[in-house]
Amino acid sequence: MPKEKSTFNLKTPKGTKDWSGSDALLRDRIFTTIADVFKRHGGTALDTPVFELREILAGKYGEDSKLIYDLQDQGGEICSLRYDLTVPFARWLAMNPDVRSMKRYHIAKVYRRDQPAVSKGRMREFYQCDFDIAGTFDPMVPDAEILRIVTEVFEELGWQGRYSIKINHRKILDGVFEVCGVPADKIRPISSAVDKLDKMPWADVRKEMVEEKGLDPAVADKIETYVIKKGGRDLLETLLKDESLLANASAKAGLEDMDLLLAYLDAFGVLDRISFDMSLARGLDYYTGVIYEVVTEGSAPAVSSSAPEAQNLQKSGKKSKSKGGNADDDDRSNDPTLGVGSVAAGGRYDNLVGMFLPKAQIPCVGVSFGVDRIFSITKARLEREKSAEALRSSEVDVFVMAFGGKGFNGMLKERMNVCQTLWNAGIKAEFSYKLKPKLPQQFKAAEQGGIPFAVILGEDELAAGKVRIKEMGLEEGHPEKEGVLVDLVTLPAEVKARVAKKQDQSSTVTQQLQGLKVDAPAN
Amino acid sequence: MPKEKSTFNLKTPKGTKDWSGSDALLRDRIFTTIADVFKRHGGTALDTPVFELREILAGKYGEDSKLIYDLQDQGGEICSLRYDLTVPFARWLAMNPDVRSMKRYHIAKVYRRDQPAVSKGRMREFYQCDFDIAGTFDPMVPDAEILRIVTEVFEELGWQGRYSIKINHRKILDGVFEVCGVPADKIRPISSAVDKLDKMPWADVRKEMVEEKGLDPAVADKIETYVIKKGGRDLLETLLKDESLLANASAKAGLEDMDLLLAYLDAFGVLDRISFDMSLARGLDYYTGVIYEVVTEGSAPAVSSSAPEAQNLQKSGKKSKSKGGNADDDDRSNDPTLGVGSVAAGGRYDNLVGMFLPKAQIPCVGVSFGVDRIFSITKARLEREKSAEALRSSEVDVFVMAFGGKGFNGMLKERMNVCQTLWNAGIKAEFSYKLKPKLPQQFKAAEQGGIPFAVILGEDELAAGKVRIKEMGLEEGHPEKEGVLVDLVTLPAEVKARVAKKQDQSSTVTQQLQGLKVDAPAN
Repeated sequence: MPKEKSTFNLKTPKGTKDWSGSDALLRDRIFTTIADVFKRHGGTALDTPVFELREILAGKYGEDSKLIYDLQDQGGEICSLRYDLTVPFARWLAMNPDVRSMKRYHIAKVYRRDQPAVSKGRMREFYQCDFDIAGTFDPMVPDAEILRIVTEVFEELGWQGRYSIKINHRKILDGVFEVCGVPADKIRPISSAVDKLDKMPWADVRKEMVEEKGLDPAVADKIETYVIKKGGRDLLETLLKDESLLANASAKAGLEDMDLLLAYLDAFGVLDRISFDMSLARGLDYYTGVIYEVVTEGSAPAVSSSAPEAQNLQKSGKKSKSKGGNADDDDRSNDPTLGVGSVAAGGRYDNLVGMFLPKAQIPCVGVSFGVDRIFSITKARLEREKSAEALRSSEVDVFVMAFGGKGFNGMLKERMNVCQTLWNAGIKAEFSYKLKPKLPQQFKAAEQGGIPFAVILGEDELAAGKVRIKEMGLEEGHPEKEGVLVDLVTLPAEVKARVAKKQDQSSTVTQQLQGLKVDAPAN
Repeated sequence: MPKEKSTFNLKTPKGTKDWSGSDALLRDRIFTTIADVFKRHGGTALDTPVFELREILAGKYGEDSKLIYDLQDQGGEICSLRYDLTVPFARWLAMNPDVRSMKRYHIAKVYRRDQPAVSKGRMREFYQCDFDIAGTFDPMVPDAEILRIVTEVFEELGWQGRYSIKINHRKILDGVFEVCGVPADKIRPISSAVDKLDKMPWADVRKEMVEEKGLDPAVADKIETYVIKKGGRDLLETLLKDESLLANASAKAGLEDMDLLLAYLDAFGVLDRISFDMSLARGLDYYTGVIYEVVTEGSAPAVSSSAPEAQNLQKSGKKSKSKGGNADDDDRSNDPTLGVGSVAAGGRYDNLVGMFLPKAQIPCVGVSFGVDRIFSITKARLEREKSAEALRSSEVDVFVMAFGGKGFNGMLKERMNVCQTLWNAGIKAEFSYKLKPKLPQQFKAAEQGGIPFAVILGEDELAAGKVRIKEMGLEEGHPEKEGVLVDLVTLPAEVKARVAKKQDQSSTVTQQLQGLKVDAPAN
């Protein structure tokens, strides 16, 4: 191996970062929580290569194709890093036309050669967590299950009452535009403008419609009467009495879908998390049916039509890569499948697989969770709640240590032997790699690791077949402050009982993130 | 979105594949089993970007650098896909010089633009599972824990008695070569030749030493007397009486290490899985201390010094990328850190981090598990044992179905509602997305999914607050063949009890892979 001078540029590539310590552990727990929900609903894992033939990605991302990372042509095939997980899934479905239905999940990194803004969380390498249901079924049944999955994910992350799901339907929206008199060729651009209502006041959106996109002001005013509507079944009932909407085939089909969807969400016990929001339009062109976006406290910028402070705030909420977006705006969110304030989003896309192979056409509906944003919000909450777990970088429950008087040999083999006993019982345990560690050093190592229990070996006690279990951090005067002497043979059971009890006492959030407890969502 | 004709080349790039269905699930279980062991020993996750600055990888892989995938220069930094997980770990340690000790694990894909042989499992994209301990500690303590971790992984995979760990020490080996009279500049080439003893008879290795590498035949004969030795503590005791070895500083240091290591492995209760094998040399240059390789039944090609059939077999076991290797040999294994027959390998490498930053030098010891090979062997065993689990692609426990007489409405909302109850309790459940599915269709879906239980809704029974639980596949005459009627309120508990009982009955392998049970390794 040639010797090299330390002239390396010691860094990760621009827009990428290492994940380590407590951040890596917390993110892994979020992945596990999400994957467990996916599996509970029959999701099967699909893992595709990190790069695809370039032609597979071509023509899928419009002008964002310039953000695709290409591999160098080193002879052979021309490949690019994947840009999302949806196109590889569609490619897989087209390659496997015998599969006529599938619930698949995929948690993996995707790549975008965008201008990064690491401090704002816009990275060139980031994770997506996708769940999609492919197949031809009775209307709105899988769509409802996707939304049920969304509620389970956030409730198990401990977000009860802190999120809501905005839903709308592309067919309703397109019908509304038709009814209001939007010319056919302006429907997508006008839809894009409406999509900005979560971060711009109506006056600005109207201006964009009329001045930038040349819409008749009277048509814009008609649109306003619809897209400002929000509600639940009440809103649907109102729309179902709107004769002009019912006379439009697209709107009628959408409203019928929505009627079914709300009934199914009721049967799934999650109707109260849903807000039917007619301003939701979603950026991507390929949606064909129901669309949704999950917003949470503090994740969506405030919207006001007057306060200039609020409008400044809103600048930082500029929609990523929507067609009217400014490619140089450094405050865009990373993921075009997510709105600025949203932590998950998705919808029905019935025509994407057919782009690869028309005869393999298969309708799909799915959702993508924005893990980086979920991570940031969860971490901030754990820190606010001063959760000890938030700072831990490992899950170790026990530190095995020893002490002794003059001539103490360190009891290394004895400590190893006790660790063996604990590991055999599946208990997470560590010990000092020093031959003769001092007791304060060992306690310090346990404290620094946030390890909740010490098992302490003393020469005389061990000779009598006993060791001491001590819970870390007990206050003075606690009856077990000095620990409890237990028989070595019962040590694993004694440790397990204490670890379980301690976990019962710790915060619900932590338990949920650890997957130790599943709370029933309230009905 | 532009319409494209279906002129796509519908495939994954050469040397890559999609993982789906039961294969993806089994591989995930193997990952979980391995990661759980890593965490039990205080391992913390480190996730690095899939690409690194090219200069970070340069000069680390010798002539194999030609196998590195480069990203196209699209302006900005020059990057390459990572080739292994060790160099990114060393880069991270050099970038974080405040971290003076760390147990890190990393399970991720690596990339090699090698000639692929998919049918033989040599891929351009494949997973590595690495655990490494960095830090300056008392000798051989972390080394022993790494070997303990190796045993836990394979025992929890259900490989008890079917694997063994070969260990040796670079300092012993180098000392032996010096004592035998190998010139200093020939030590590494001669070591490479010795490393082939697991797939070539001594006569061929000797020929390589003498004819290709110009070694004095008398020296080669002396080497033979050492490298054919295998054993345990008995072998070490013999070597510790070898005056000429003890007079060599390197050999003496290695033997002292080995003495400590065996004592620690005894304290960890795993000495019986270890074979001290003086022919083990390992391909990579950067090892500086103890080295090891895990072999399993059927994974290592037979070695014979005479039978020509055996020698033909051995051809297919040619060592990957060792310096004497043939780059066109299509039968090489993929991963140069693994020998042909091995399923895990590693060793101590004290000087690698210093290649990035001499002042951040930090000794390391680690192991890499060959997940693809572990997957193939595990899958073959599950198929041989006709494990139903091996064929499942999801983990769903319950299929909720309904039936009724004339005018039956399909009970969709009722099925949804029962699913809700089960999901709330954390039970994995599915139902048909049809409005009015026929009962045989629903049973067929449950059977095809390998789902062990059906919950059956009948109109009259449900009106009385009852549903039927039926275990799938019970033989005629079984008392519960027609299922058991239970109260809807007790359904989750009834299902959980039956699922737990069923899992207790299923094979140990499956349970272990599901992480449901931790078997204590025998002492």
